[in-house]
Amino acid sequence: MTRETLQQAYNEIKDQVHRTPVLQSRLLNDKAKAALFFKCENFQKMGAFKMRGALHAIQKLNKEQKQKGVLTHSSGNFAQALSLAAKNLGVRAHIVMPDNAPQVKKEAVSSYDGNIYFSQSSANAREQKSEELLRQFGYSFIHPSNDIHVILGNATAAIELLEEIPDLDILITPVGGGGLIAGTALAGHFFGKTSIKIMGAEPKNVDDAYRSLQLGSIQKNNNTATIADGLRTHLGDVNFPIIQEYVSLILRVEEKDILSAMQLVWERMKIVIEPSSAVAVAAVLQHQEHFKNKKVGIIISGGNVDLSALPF
Amino acid sequence: MTRETLQQAYNEIKDQVHRTPVLQSRLLNDKAKAALFFKCENFQKMGAFKMRGALHAIQKLNKEQKQKGVLTHSSGNFAQALSLAAKNLGVRAHIVMPDNAPQVKKEAVSSYDGNIYFSQSSANAREQKSEELLRQFGYSFIHPSNDIHVILGNATAAIELLEEIPDLDILITPVGGGGLIAGTALAGHFFGKTSIKIMGAEPKNVDDAYRSLQLGSIQKNNNTATIADGLRTHLGDVNFPIIQEYVSLILRVEEKDILSAMQLVWERMKIVIEPSSAVAVAAVLQHQEHFKNKKVGIIISGGNVDLSALPF
Repeated sequence: MTRETLQQAYNEIKDQVHRTPVLQSRLLNDKAKAALFFKCENFQKMGAFKMRGALHAIQKLNKEQKQKGVLTHSSGNFAQALSLAAKNLGVRAHIVMPDNAPQVKKEAVSSYDGNIYFSQSSANAREQKSEELLRQFGYSFIHPSNDIHVILGNATAAIELLEEIPDLDILITPVGGGGLIAGTALAGHFFGKTSIKIMGAEPKNVDDAYRSLQLGSIQKNNNTATIADGLRTHLGDVNFPIIQEYVSLILRVEEKDILSAMQLVWERMKIVIEPSSAVAVAAVLQHQEHFKNKKVGIIISGGNVDLSALPF
Repeated sequence: MTRETLQQAYNEIKDQVHRTPVLQSRLLNDKAKAALFFKCENFQKMGAFKMRGALHAIQKLNKEQKQKGVLTHSSGNFAQALSLAAKNLGVRAHIVMPDNAPQVKKEAVSSYDGNIYFSQSSANAREQKSEELLRQFGYSFIHPSNDIHVILGNATAAIELLEEIPDLDILITPVGGGGLIAGTALAGHFFGKTSIKIMGAEPKNVDDAYRSLQLGSIQKNNNTATIADGLRTHLGDVNFPIIQEYVSLILRVEEKDILSAMQLVWERMKIVIEPSSAVAVAAVLQHQEHFKNKKVGIIISGGNVDLSALPF
């Protein structure tokens, strides 16, 4: 892995993604006692950074693989990202979804021409259904977070941020499956200054990444009781070694602090961010000892929120 | 009134305001069958275009007037705008507010160092209290919308928009007290192309401006049953003649269409806009016959919303 590997990933997708804005807020700077730079992937196509990884992973396939199509299992942002990325590249995307997935998620995938296969809702049933389809049709499987080309695509958000603010002291992202923080860590290492620190933010209720780094092996969550629905998953064998090498700290936050960070950003910055993104903002506000007087890049991972089910 | 009058107003405030972004949305363009350009004053200081008018009106005062301070009566965005503008210019702002105004509004004014005087909640009581204070302390009264310097300040949002998109066919704004549409109309006339049309958007439930243009005299609203709380007021003798001369059409929209336009913008554009702004978006979506294949500038007036009282 070199700087050139990342630069090439960026060159391959940059014409297919929005260069999202980097926003600042004086009020949030005052509250955090730091200079915060929000990389707004909520303004990315389909509303999340996952578009970057999905695009890059599809582009790395050969012609025959592209003709056969791609498959993932996800009911969240990656299902939409893979569907839209595939559509934009003239490839067919197939999504395995639990049959009890919310109607709004099914419609989102369908609106991007993703082809849905239903499975029962257990992880086992989902994986079995996927394997069956892969055997039968020869689709290429693309994991939402544990795939090196997805990780390299995700890295491009931080590459853009570092192009604008080269001297960041800290980069922080929310941590779910580990694909965003792994990519961001690589970008920080190869494009940031030598002393840059990479941090992750996790809800205390699903602190699998925190425990994984402590124990040196991938841990899972026994419950999924967090509003940050994008962060309930666990790390994988591709991204965990990267995280072990380059991430210095995982900060954990309470549910109430996630909510108030989300409300603060909506009310004062006038942008819609999803709960998972608010986890990173909450970490910066709640653990000020790590950020005081620093230049901090925060990856706002997405803005897909169901307004009919708001927690305020 | 000349182009130079407006240019001078812009020169006087441009270092004190944010140059807000102009956003586009492919999805909304498709829905409207038009090219929409959103001038995002929700990202303006204190969250609304009113900062522009307040700054300009204070700057036009002489030194003695500035020393004595300014006064307005408002419980909405203009109270905050005048407080912050005054603070930034080293002037003291005094705000007459009904004693039953929501706590959140009192706190917003106080946070910008505005000095609050309470009155009873009727319009009469408010005006009597204001006159008493003006006599006693010699403050300069600044009306939220019926003041030519406020109007000229408001015009600068559309001046910026026309600098970026000079060939707009239509400019549309929400209409409340008339200060935004009057300023926008002047900007369109002096900075837009010759054929530019200026339109206003109003909730059907408070369509005083629509009726005023039809009848040729200022009409009031008998009820104020709209979610667009910034649009319940009526026009004034300073802005009405400007509106009569330059505004070609007022479009009216139903409450349900205001709500769905607001939800659409939040969900798809990931920006927080207030209900009054959604009125203009709803007008473009509901009255497509006026906008088809046109380049349409929409002034997104503000983004101040109480998240604890959302209508979704």
